[in-house]
Amino acid sequence: MSNFLKPEAISGFPEWLPEERILEQSILDMIRENFEKYGFVPIETSAVEKTAMLIAKGSNDREIYTLGRLSNYSGDNDQNLALHFDLTVPLARYVVQNYGLLSFPFRRYQIQKVWRGERPQSGRFREFYQCDIDVVGDRELPLLVDAEMPSVIYQIFKQMNIGKFMINVNNKKILQGYFSFYGLSSHCINEAMHAIDKLEKVGVAETRKTMAEKGIGANTIDDIINFASINKSINETMEYLRSCKVDNELFLQGVDELEQVIGHMNSLGIPQESYKINLGIVRGLDYYTGTIYETTLIDYPGIGSICSGGRYDNLTSFFGDKKMPGVGISIGLTRLFSQLLKAGIIKTGPSTTALVLITSMDKNLMSYYFNIATLLRDSGIKTEVYFDSKKLGDQLKYASKKGFRFAIIAGNDEVNKNSVQIKNLETGEQNFVNLNDVCSEVSKIM
Amino acid sequence: MSNFLKPEAISGFPEWLPEERILEQSILDMIRENFEKYGFVPIETSAVEKTAMLIAKGSNDREIYTLGRLSNYSGDNDQNLALHFDLTVPLARYVVQNYGLLSFPFRRYQIQKVWRGERPQSGRFREFYQCDIDVVGDRELPLLVDAEMPSVIYQIFKQMNIGKFMINVNNKKILQGYFSFYGLSSHCINEAMHAIDKLEKVGVAETRKTMAEKGIGANTIDDIINFASINKSINETMEYLRSCKVDNELFLQGVDELEQVIGHMNSLGIPQESYKINLGIVRGLDYYTGTIYETTLIDYPGIGSICSGGRYDNLTSFFGDKKMPGVGISIGLTRLFSQLLKAGIIKTGPSTTALVLITSMDKNLMSYYFNIATLLRDSGIKTEVYFDSKKLGDQLKYASKKGFRFAIIAGNDEVNKNSVQIKNLETGEQNFVNLNDVCSEVSKIM
Repeated sequence: MSNFLKPEAISGFPEWLPEERILEQSILDMIRENFEKYGFVPIETSAVEKTAMLIAKGSNDREIYTLGRLSNYSGDNDQNLALHFDLTVPLARYVVQNYGLLSFPFRRYQIQKVWRGERPQSGRFREFYQCDIDVVGDRELPLLVDAEMPSVIYQIFKQMNIGKFMINVNNKKILQGYFSFYGLSSHCINEAMHAIDKLEKVGVAETRKTMAEKGIGANTIDDIINFASINKSINETMEYLRSCKVDNELFLQGVDELEQVIGHMNSLGIPQESYKINLGIVRGLDYYTGTIYETTLIDYPGIGSICSGGRYDNLTSFFGDKKMPGVGISIGLTRLFSQLLKAGIIKTGPSTTALVLITSMDKNLMSYYFNIATLLRDSGIKTEVYFDSKKLGDQLKYASKKGFRFAIIAGNDEVNKNSVQIKNLETGEQNFVNLNDVCSEVSKIM
Repeated sequence: MSNFLKPEAISGFPEWLPEERILEQSILDMIRENFEKYGFVPIETSAVEKTAMLIAKGSNDREIYTLGRLSNYSGDNDQNLALHFDLTVPLARYVVQNYGLLSFPFRRYQIQKVWRGERPQSGRFREFYQCDIDVVGDRELPLLVDAEMPSVIYQIFKQMNIGKFMINVNNKKILQGYFSFYGLSSHCINEAMHAIDKLEKVGVAETRKTMAEKGIGANTIDDIINFASINKSINETMEYLRSCKVDNELFLQGVDELEQVIGHMNSLGIPQESYKINLGIVRGLDYYTGTIYETTLIDYPGIGSICSGGRYDNLTSFFGDKKMPGVGISIGLTRLFSQLLKAGIIKTGPSTTALVLITSMDKNLMSYYFNIATLLRDSGIKTEVYFDSKKLGDQLKYASKKGFRFAIIAGNDEVNKNSVQIKNLETGEQNFVNLNDVCSEVSKIM
């Protein structure tokens, strides 16, 4: 039988068991609910983009999955397509393509799979969910938007109930201005930014070495590392920034912007213990130009950033179009979900979304069972009818394994009395109930 | 500026405007809700499968999208992957792979995009949503399941509110047995089945010609076409089938099964005007072996089948595993949605999911606006705050264009009185309301 196929998992393309998918789905629903609570509107872009579009954003070529056909197919106009590797390039293309039909500022959310040909390693996926919100302005966009993002982040992670988290906020202009003030060339600034970005990961010694190799003087390196490592309260950090004798326009602009954003965040009522200014966060992506965010779990720093984003000057620059500034955040949900599950921070529940299993004691009574199912479903109670002709004990085992809350049992006795037995599968309690009272009885003990 | 990219739609990969996506999403939610109401559990399989797996199901090679990398990447283990073209092959692979971890009968739903390299033509998409349910049994599966599918179909299309629909039910064994009885060879039976499948589309003359070319005698062709075209009530059709002098085991088995399924459908309370026996439906897919379904809109026959499926003997045959019979249905939602929209049978509403827009009359009052937003959001009312510094008139225009129900307006006067104005954007009515009453007031007129 060697010509039969053997089904195997494909590395980097995660799949979940039903109970895991139910949990993941409930988190996706909660995220969506919060996005909508803030007035973000849904769009969904196709999984594919023209390859030229994806390259224009300067992504890693080797990570882009292109499409082909199993057999040659001429006369085809869908050559040169590739799967999107994020939702930002598609957003930019969508906004330019539908410019006249959209309302600006355009507040959209997208919850979709993206594909990236990463090397397989723990926690790295090749297919994963991104949950993104962005506000895109037509020519301008006030700093109020920068403050709203942490408010959405706060609501989502509070509701996700995964312990204390910290929203790190920074403004990219501050560090850039600081480097400029120290006389670093613009190429050198980029290198130094990347070095600071890795500071927490690789440590001070390694960062010092990297910066020295770029020709930065030892004293300057110390200053920069000290500056990026400041760990004070929000007010103290703002005071410190104000007192810095850094006479650089970009730096001062960054400090001003950060102060305004922090002020608005306070107005929005984000609890002070949930966020801090972290001058050391940089966000690798080059298109961020102002405010940046990174959120981490305080008790699980190893999970890394669970949500990040920032402000960019011009979303649609590679279309040569009008200037469209934006602010956005992204939750890489698959990675987060898989790590939370692995660490036991979230736990799966039932492998059914239905509450009630109607058992089939007697094939001749099926229409009675169907009748009960219809009653329950019509009153909004999710209900499965068991069809296999197994012993009642086996049916109850199936019910317990899948995690139903109630089993409904009816034989000839019950039918003659126009009643059922409701078995609470958690407590084991079993009650006779008149058929007319089934829905209210289940609702009562739900 | 010729090196700037021009964003264009890609043929066959549909995208919607926000108001369309909101409508599509509400339909997807409704379908999911109904799947869960019947106890189907969600799974999601990866977008890709090993190419060998997809070929094994004998699909059209030219329609399969394979994955490659933009640049060569050796040492990779994700060669030979392709995008799934349906959700049935993935289900089969998933069931075999997770056999020991699943409860049988396994009732799952999947609502996912699939990809098929179709020739571009109106209503044909290369990327589209499929909404599938299947029940897969371990060795056996009672005919009750065959009757439950039309019940789910009925609930969904009733709620979709798209006019009268007809669930056509048949059993493939009946026509196969009928052909056998007439002495057709098994190859000839398949050809005749395909001819009958196209009968409604191409007409009697064309079908007669096709069958004649296969060497079927003129009288037999007439008999077959008459048989497949029978259009009587359910009871009359069953009576006719019982009275047929067709002495063929497969035929009789098909009639028996059909009778049982119809009986269970009645027990389930599916209204008789919503379904009929249609001996002429065949379902092109070769793996259906018993009951088959096709649903059509009575007032819009041109849309064709909006939901179809059936019973198959063995889902996992190409894995050489134990016998796993199943019954399933599939809604090709993207095609249906696009046609309903085009025909004006469904209409888009607002391009926002939020009810309330809080206008920004005065930048200095932002914390007051944020406060109102938090009050509303905390009581579950989706709310957007307008951030741009435009005139109030422009802000209200934005609110009307996007379809908000209410605008909230507050200047210094309102703030001093701890109040707001609520403007009903449908009626134009405008009322002063105390800040404490905002939520209850909005809820009241919602």
